[in-house]
Amino acid sequence: MSSFPASEIFPAPTIGVFDSGFGGLTVLRALIERMPQAEFAFLGDTARLPYGSKSRRTIARYAAESAQFLVREQGAEFLVIACNTASALALDAIQDAVQVPVLGVIEPGAEAASAASLSGDVLVIATDATVQSHAYTAACRAVGLRALEKACPLLVPLVEEGWTQPAAMTGAITAEVIRIYLDELTRTAAAEGLTPDVLLLGCTHYPLLRPLLEAAVPPSIRVIDSAQAVADAAMRSLKGRLAQAGAGSPGAIRCFATDSVDKFERLGSRFLGYPVGKVQLVDLGG
Amino acid sequence: MSSFPASEIFPAPTIGVFDSGFGGLTVLRALIERMPQAEFAFLGDTARLPYGSKSRRTIARYAAESAQFLVREQGAEFLVIACNTASALALDAIQDAVQVPVLGVIEPGAEAASAASLSGDVLVIATDATVQSHAYTAACRAVGLRALEKACPLLVPLVEEGWTQPAAMTGAITAEVIRIYLDELTRTAAAEGLTPDVLLLGCTHYPLLRPLLEAAVPPSIRVIDSAQAVADAAMRSLKGRLAQAGAGSPGAIRCFATDSVDKFERLGSRFLGYPVGKVQLVDLGG
Repeated sequence: MSSFPASEIFPAPTIGVFDSGFGGLTVLRALIERMPQAEFAFLGDTARLPYGSKSRRTIARYAAESAQFLVREQGAEFLVIACNTASALALDAIQDAVQVPVLGVIEPGAEAASAASLSGDVLVIATDATVQSHAYTAACRAVGLRALEKACPLLVPLVEEGWTQPAAMTGAITAEVIRIYLDELTRTAAAEGLTPDVLLLGCTHYPLLRPLLEAAVPPSIRVIDSAQAVADAAMRSLKGRLAQAGAGSPGAIRCFATDSVDKFERLGSRFLGYPVGKVQLVDLGG
Repeated sequence: MSSFPASEIFPAPTIGVFDSGFGGLTVLRALIERMPQAEFAFLGDTARLPYGSKSRRTIARYAAESAQFLVREQGAEFLVIACNTASALALDAIQDAVQVPVLGVIEPGAEAASAASLSGDVLVIATDATVQSHAYTAACRAVGLRALEKACPLLVPLVEEGWTQPAAMTGAITAEVIRIYLDELTRTAAAEGLTPDVLLLGCTHYPLLRPLLEAAVPPSIRVIDSAQAVADAAMRSLKGRLAQAGAGSPGAIRCFATDSVDKFERLGSRFLGYPVGKVQLVDLGG
């Protein structure tokens, strides 16, 4: 017999969100929009970024340490890996390192692309490291899609520089960079006989470029954002737990970084949509 | 009494060149142009870049280990630190770690700016990390110059993407980015009552942008490149030693990287002006 009354309200769950940098804040934003009643702990492993240039073994160790911090020290009951490189190369290692459910960013993105595509052909843009891992190609193939990937190395620094406003002179430059990248990608797609109807954003920085990207593709191509997709998938997983927690539990966001706290606070509000508040520095070792 | 005849020809000296990444290859190029009779060992600590986001202590340790590799394992008699961050934050630590002369990139740049400037006012463009260290401001002040620094975070990724050809559509984008950065810098200079006549390139990637930068500044402003300046300073230091080595000693370049050997080989030729050949992977530890 349960010792709790049926009307017991459990405390709100803490969702841990992890990225090597700041981009994962766009995923945090999507999670908060869907689950305002949850609590959130976000860790950016900024001292050890970029993960993209490191070996699989090193990335697995860094990601496992970061995941353990969120679960053991911040009480996360559910983990979202808001980092494409860690999702591509270290999801198994993270799942082995902690006892809570772990959701990467790549499979939900591929599933959302699958739901949106009629032709079965999908364009994917991402960083160099993500493209070289071919994780999106594999995840798309697993849901019956053909994917054509392209690395767009200038888009992350353009977002971090804040050159994302369509009306500004700086935004016009970003629009032109996007046009050059997408022209190349759609030319390759045509040459390979593909008829893509989805553009999948395979980098957590790219949601800030959504207006520019939507303006750059023909109306026949839908822009799908893996930040939105992973937030939808997390909400489906946590539905029961959130119902138990009841309405009105106080939401809270705690942000942590392993370095560059100032840059985090400066960029964070742009990614999150409102001020991140005080970011706490944590040391996870070398 | 010397046991060597007066006509003894000593072997060519090995000059060690160190950077956290690939940009230092522009310094290597300038060194080779001035001292084709020397041998060169270049190390890019690519596994641990970017140095810019790390603490002074960590950078000092990494740079000292890299310097020791070049001296102890590659026999370098003279070291050039072709990395602005390491020059700004770790020159003392490197000098303590090895027994050979060590030349950073910042003081020679400031001295070259001083030789070129009549007004005493100098504009400096560099990465975010270098600007935040204010190393150029300090080095310029030491030679009687007033410096105004500006971080230009998009220029390194534009160079690494190869968007540097003035005649190309991609080069036109880079030209526009440069115009936006320099407009902001010259407006600030005017507001502060400065009359700059030198633009000092405080990043080893920027020499690849020289044609675009020269086209962007008025003829009254001279573009000074710290890669050229450090090569001139190294040549002055090594003059006697090179004379001893005699003419016709075989030149040789050995390239090493701690990670991303493929990217090194791909970008290297662009920075160096000809193929870098086989790059050897070395492990300096975590």
